[in-house]
Amino acid sequence: MSVLTPSQLRAKIRAGDHTGNTSGFCEGFVQGNVVILPKDWADEFLQFCHLNPKPCPVVGMAAKPGDTSIEGLGPDFDIRSDVPSYRVWENGELSREVNDITELWRGDLVTFVLGCSFSFEEALQADGLEVRNIAEGVNVPMYNTNIPCRSTERFSGNMVVSMRPFVPADAIRMIQICTRFPSVHGAPVHFGDPAAIGIGDINSTDYGDAVTIHPGEVPVFTACGVTPQAVIMEAKPPFCITHSPGCMVVSDLPNSRLAVL
Amino acid sequence: MSVLTPSQLRAKIRAGDHTGNTSGFCEGFVQGNVVILPKDWADEFLQFCHLNPKPCPVVGMAAKPGDTSIEGLGPDFDIRSDVPSYRVWENGELSREVNDITELWRGDLVTFVLGCSFSFEEALQADGLEVRNIAEGVNVPMYNTNIPCRSTERFSGNMVVSMRPFVPADAIRMIQICTRFPSVHGAPVHFGDPAAIGIGDINSTDYGDAVTIHPGEVPVFTACGVTPQAVIMEAKPPFCITHSPGCMVVSDLPNSRLAVL
Repeated sequence: MSVLTPSQLRAKIRAGDHTGNTSGFCEGFVQGNVVILPKDWADEFLQFCHLNPKPCPVVGMAAKPGDTSIEGLGPDFDIRSDVPSYRVWENGELSREVNDITELWRGDLVTFVLGCSFSFEEALQADGLEVRNIAEGVNVPMYNTNIPCRSTERFSGNMVVSMRPFVPADAIRMIQICTRFPSVHGAPVHFGDPAAIGIGDINSTDYGDAVTIHPGEVPVFTACGVTPQAVIMEAKPPFCITHSPGCMVVSDLPNSRLAVL
Repeated sequence: MSVLTPSQLRAKIRAGDHTGNTSGFCEGFVQGNVVILPKDWADEFLQFCHLNPKPCPVVGMAAKPGDTSIEGLGPDFDIRSDVPSYRVWENGELSREVNDITELWRGDLVTFVLGCSFSFEEALQADGLEVRNIAEGVNVPMYNTNIPCRSTERFSGNMVVSMRPFVPADAIRMIQICTRFPSVHGAPVHFGDPAAIGIGDINSTDYGDAVTIHPGEVPVFTACGVTPQAVIMEAKPPFCITHSPGCMVVSDLPNSRLAVL
């Protein structure tokens, strides 16, 4: 595991020396999902986030269109170069994957950083709970559900959830811990029967990898940061930039600062 | 429902004009389980409560043996006359049921008031959740489990739990609300599979009444104030007084004061 500070890791990313996954780097600091939209879509996206705080918790937002820094995430932070890998979307289609978006930058682009499960997984592990996807060294299993998000004029869709299995007593503790972190998806939205939220087969994920569910464990489902990406791709804005999966923005904000209690 | 204040209800009980259930009276105020033990057993009982705060949350305790009042529960409070019905136990056997214990009072008796689920049920209802035993007008279902309490020299036994069914999303909310109330049993100890905690048949209760569990609901199990009574009866102290089931001590303490958050 890296002992780089967030600022040091951002410098490496900016220099092109780190272009992959940020999982396991800069323990203790908030990593976030990135969404960059033109101003005429960004206002409505903020409204969508406001209506759906569990899947779309806004941890940071550029003060005005064109800004490349975000207050509080780091003094050197530059959204054009500080994410290891970006996905560029045009009309809802993935156009290309790049490691720097300086050449694509425009004065009308608004940056959002949304909370990510890395923060609460760290809190769960610190409490002694096993996070199965980490224990098995795979991406967390994610599923499309039939739980509708609240809609805006152009943004609508169902919630995507991540799943972690626990025995019930640990699930209760997990609910308590996650409740303290509303800005990284907060308390779970469901546990138990996958079919009750429209998941047909727990072993067949829509994103990420399946994990082992041991006898006596129940799957616990948490709103997932893939939701806004799925919703945006469905809305097909002419232009959008996101991070590549697992390649998050790494901030100077301590995870503990996200705890409301 | 009664609009009596706790002090007014206690005066009626003291006068012998109310000898039954206190459920539904004095909404908003803490009602408690009563345990009265001789000094040489009381010290160890306090230790047992300390080791098992979920089933045995101490809301009040007499400052010294022989005291008939408890600080904070009400200026007029007299434990000898203010409980509608008492059970007198000798060597672990129920000896009699009386409405006043003034003639039985001794200078070595220590009074404990333990939190009761009425307080969190009120908080659940205030949040819009249906509490099934209240909706169906029956006593809450209670079960012996295989969850061991932590033992002292003379007190040991398994936890007794109460059960309320909820759909998972409401169960998550219920866990959040109950977490705020550690002195009335706190967060649940289990949900889902009854067999996992040694309950053979959810429709066959050990105490109280069975309730309907609708499709899609899961049983949620909370530590229960019957636990200390069961443990004391098993330990067979020479003398003990408790309240009769449902006939609680009614205090001046607002339920909201029990919330830690």
